[in-house]
Amino acid sequence: MALLSLLSHSRARSSVLREPLRQGGLRALLAPWAPPPVHPHDRAAGHACTPPSTELSPPGRALPPPLDWTRLGSRTISSGVGTSLAQYGLTNHTLTSQRRSYWTLCPQHSSFGPPAGIATKEAQHSVNDSFGVQRRTFGSAAEPIQRNPDYSVLNSDDVSYFKSILGDNGVVQDKDRVAVANVDWMGKYKGASQLLLLPKSTNEVSKVLAYCDSRRLAVVPQGGNTGLVGGSVPVHDEVIVNLGGMDKIISFDNVNGILTCEAGCVLENLSTFVENEGFIMPLDLGAKGSCQIGGNISTNAGGLRFIRYGSLHGNVLGLEVVLANGTVLDMLTTLRKDNTGYDLKHLFVGSEGSLGIVTKVSILTPAKLPSTNVAFLSCNDYMSCQKLLLAARRSLGEILSAFEFMDRQCIDLAMTHLEGVHNPLPVSPYKFYVLIETTGSDESYDKAKLEAFLLRSMEDGLVADGVIAQDISQASNFWRIREGISEASVKVGAVYKYDLSIPVEKLYDIVEEMRSRVGDTAEVLGYGHLGDGNLHLNILSSKYSDNILAQIEPFVYEWTAGHRGSISAEHGLGLMKAEKIHYSKSPEAVQLMASIKKLMDPNSILNPYKVLPRSALSPEQGN
Amino acid sequence: MALLSLLSHSRARSSVLREPLRQGGLRALLAPWAPPPVHPHDRAAGHACTPPSTELSPPGRALPPPLDWTRLGSRTISSGVGTSLAQYGLTNHTLTSQRRSYWTLCPQHSSFGPPAGIATKEAQHSVNDSFGVQRRTFGSAAEPIQRNPDYSVLNSDDVSYFKSILGDNGVVQDKDRVAVANVDWMGKYKGASQLLLLPKSTNEVSKVLAYCDSRRLAVVPQGGNTGLVGGSVPVHDEVIVNLGGMDKIISFDNVNGILTCEAGCVLENLSTFVENEGFIMPLDLGAKGSCQIGGNISTNAGGLRFIRYGSLHGNVLGLEVVLANGTVLDMLTTLRKDNTGYDLKHLFVGSEGSLGIVTKVSILTPAKLPSTNVAFLSCNDYMSCQKLLLAARRSLGEILSAFEFMDRQCIDLAMTHLEGVHNPLPVSPYKFYVLIETTGSDESYDKAKLEAFLLRSMEDGLVADGVIAQDISQASNFWRIREGISEASVKVGAVYKYDLSIPVEKLYDIVEEMRSRVGDTAEVLGYGHLGDGNLHLNILSSKYSDNILAQIEPFVYEWTAGHRGSISAEHGLGLMKAEKIHYSKSPEAVQLMASIKKLMDPNSILNPYKVLPRSALSPEQGN
Repeated sequence: MALLSLLSHSRARSSVLREPLRQGGLRALLAPWAPPPVHPHDRAAGHACTPPSTELSPPGRALPPPLDWTRLGSRTISSGVGTSLAQYGLTNHTLTSQRRSYWTLCPQHSSFGPPAGIATKEAQHSVNDSFGVQRRTFGSAAEPIQRNPDYSVLNSDDVSYFKSILGDNGVVQDKDRVAVANVDWMGKYKGASQLLLLPKSTNEVSKVLAYCDSRRLAVVPQGGNTGLVGGSVPVHDEVIVNLGGMDKIISFDNVNGILTCEAGCVLENLSTFVENEGFIMPLDLGAKGSCQIGGNISTNAGGLRFIRYGSLHGNVLGLEVVLANGTVLDMLTTLRKDNTGYDLKHLFVGSEGSLGIVTKVSILTPAKLPSTNVAFLSCNDYMSCQKLLLAARRSLGEILSAFEFMDRQCIDLAMTHLEGVHNPLPVSPYKFYVLIETTGSDESYDKAKLEAFLLRSMEDGLVADGVIAQDISQASNFWRIREGISEASVKVGAVYKYDLSIPVEKLYDIVEEMRSRVGDTAEVLGYGHLGDGNLHLNILSSKYSDNILAQIEPFVYEWTAGHRGSISAEHGLGLMKAEKIHYSKSPEAVQLMASIKKLMDPNSILNPYKVLPRSALSPEQGN
Repeated sequence: MALLSLLSHSRARSSVLREPLRQGGLRALLAPWAPPPVHPHDRAAGHACTPPSTELSPPGRALPPPLDWTRLGSRTISSGVGTSLAQYGLTNHTLTSQRRSYWTLCPQHSSFGPPAGIATKEAQHSVNDSFGVQRRTFGSAAEPIQRNPDYSVLNSDDVSYFKSILGDNGVVQDKDRVAVANVDWMGKYKGASQLLLLPKSTNEVSKVLAYCDSRRLAVVPQGGNTGLVGGSVPVHDEVIVNLGGMDKIISFDNVNGILTCEAGCVLENLSTFVENEGFIMPLDLGAKGSCQIGGNISTNAGGLRFIRYGSLHGNVLGLEVVLANGTVLDMLTTLRKDNTGYDLKHLFVGSEGSLGIVTKVSILTPAKLPSTNVAFLSCNDYMSCQKLLLAARRSLGEILSAFEFMDRQCIDLAMTHLEGVHNPLPVSPYKFYVLIETTGSDESYDKAKLEAFLLRSMEDGLVADGVIAQDISQASNFWRIREGISEASVKVGAVYKYDLSIPVEKLYDIVEEMRSRVGDTAEVLGYGHLGDGNLHLNILSSKYSDNILAQIEPFVYEWTAGHRGSISAEHGLGLMKAEKIHYSKSPEAVQLMASIKKLMDPNSILNPYKVLPRSALSPEQGN
């Protein structure tokens, strides 16, 4: 029966799949028919500001015919989002017809939006309260932080100087526009900056930083502002330096696939550009429509292609960075190999703008491959999931491009709360589900490989049941289940979200332990990028409760530390977890980080209060 | 005709190839029948110390039957090398039946061996001159360097202290054994250390460094001592700390392929270990029989799998490092994702032991794939080679595992000077040759893909002629040509060797420019890892000449710098090129490197005189 279910879906050739995939990749085709995807990096936020649902389909696209077992996703408007963005003055955000920028702010009607609880009174006065951010905490929100009195307070002479460098258009004081830049996309972190600077060149960034350093004005570097840990907005009155104006592609080497561009380029624009040249970006995020490559690098973004193409440390070839004192550090090589001295660029990959501002990037882009297949499978136990991963690595090897994992609770939640999503497998007591994607250069070979692998896996008892998508609609439904979990979570009420790296063999243990800790008071979900050892642990309850939080924290951090895991697999530390770094890094490592920070930014002007704990930095610097 | 030549070799199925490849990969099978491979990383040295040729084949292996167009490589002894190694006390070097450690020192009979000309008189007195290193310079040899008088001179109290930590066996003063550790494998760089320390644990390394730092005794960290730039031997009387005693495998996660081990593990031993688990190391070097993983990481070794698996920055997951003051920096995570603070481990990848001593490593190992195919092709012009690379990236995509490039001069040289090597293509005026290797999970699919790709490439005029290896012997012959170029070079007489990274479209320009510069006085060869933009530029003449050198340098460095290339693609700077860093790195970058060096090693005890130029470090430190 199970075998039949697999075969019935896999025998027919998916000829309809091929050509559209050549145009834009599988995932790019999901948006038009799916509800607004939830947040970026791993859907750890989930409560995207969804415009009211409508029956409109995107212009110029017909809906595919529904199939018997897969219904279409709920159709929401996408063409109206541009208006909302313009209304908030997010001129640096771009929209395309294929994917929406869905992590814009939600004026007035935010129905969730865990706030920071960090904005001090002095900070709040300048922030536009009409954004209606609720003061509710979903765990790990930072405690109130005092402004470091060593920093200067912005004055009119400073503004005049910035205007002399950037021109009037590069110096934004308009309250509404500054207010938008003061708040992160979740509405969770809110600063009180009064100045947004929009440099257009490295030279301008250099002059801005040299001046700020000499005046000791604190600075927050900002890209697409799609971060999840409060790293890209001010805490107090830091000057915001947004790189969105530096969005030029400088060169593309179409033999080696090496792209060189400015840091403010939006990831999706880069993807479109290199795809036209026959390549793809080595990273892909839900946030691609807004996030900027400089921010991706500064946060060492992970994303959906990590299992295949690895970390940005392996893909970024060169950087140009402006240091705190305005020095331009030219490391903008386009070479794959360069062993001349210390490879300094790695210091800026993932240091969240606290050591310098990335202004230019060169990055290796893999060749675009035309064939993509997606399978949705069930397993009876977690051990089978692990063995299936091992077998997939061995048998699918070079074509494996995703191995995503969900427990039954996730599927139940998705089926209950996501419109138009259907479980492609018969209802049964499977405990675990796996989504496998392959990407390769030859569709017929690749599909045959996947089918053979799945048949073997069923014979070996690793897979209980499964289907292979026969067209884009089916593939879209599979991905929609996986990507909709976070969105579905927030519909329950309160959700406590954790983004953990844990050795794969222990990865599900914390889900079960958490379940027994919280008992009937909350629902515990486990899902994530199993191929990368990255668990997304969500704890859901009808309303926020200190008692539940006390069951979760610090247990979740202590457990993760006890298993040599990471308390932030891909989101970074930012403001949210700066004080929790000791759970994942040794005191000696933290101390060396602090020493490097002091060496490179002695006045501590870059992105203060974040990444490193106050205790590691000198008391007189106050953060 | 050309097409026929391809088809005639490619139609027959290579059933004989499959099973042996499953056992150990293609390249591992080359050694038993091939002459001793030339040096490590890219054959940049080439003059391996070849034991006298014999007709012995390795025990337990029968030679394959010779084919009409491919003769067997000259068969040399491999079983005798172990004795030579033991004779020199290199107890930390290992041998296996599959591959020889061929870059051991050559007592008495060295017939080439470009020396440094750097050993000062005070250094020379303690070095055993019986090694017979010739004093001949092949370019870029360092100028004499004064000993930094700030360093203490070793005394008997120091030795007693080290014995109290390491025991008598861990403290080597025997002149012969110390002499071996004082000289690099080429015999090019020679120090004057009087003490070789062999710690067995991180704690011992920590105590040694803490003591040396407090006493200001200079230290040279040493692994397999297979480097090409004088980075792993003393310049003067530095204490040698060899990690070979720390050779334990700590753990292996066979779901994710994550290996954790001590830094002194020999790469080939690790390869054997993980292959038994169904994985491969992400790097492979000619030097694998001697080089240690800690040294690989400290030099950011490139090697043969770079095009497929990328740099160690992408594959190393965690490190344990002992800092100059003895602090143990535990960054030994086994996680694929960890965005908690600055990713400090990258500072130690490629910094050549000058910031700390790597003591433990965790590294991601890819799944071992069973199918390997090799093709040998000719192209009429360099543009065709570039286009072929682009097409291979697109069509072979995920199975492409090598794309090596040679000009006609290389082939002519190999045919003239390498015994038993045969050009598989008809003699004709082809200007360029390309070796393509694929590695994948299914032999029949992979081979069909390769054949289809080559047919298309011939139809498109990119490939003039070509053959696909039908068995191991043919594949071995193809690789032997590519890997034998360096060995053949040194048979001409003097060879000036450069290891450059240059953007692919310009990569061959310097070869042609160099040809017109040197005219009839020398032969210029260009070959290398085209897929990585890594050119090996060799200039050959019958004897060494200052006039020829003056034609080459500083032109080669200036030209490379002018094209934003790297003067050291994969070898590092070491002592050889420390003063040449400015050709590839900006003054601001070098200054930041020096600041980080001073921060992390204020007494400058770690690997002095190397990597960074004296001008960037403070004068009072003297190096």
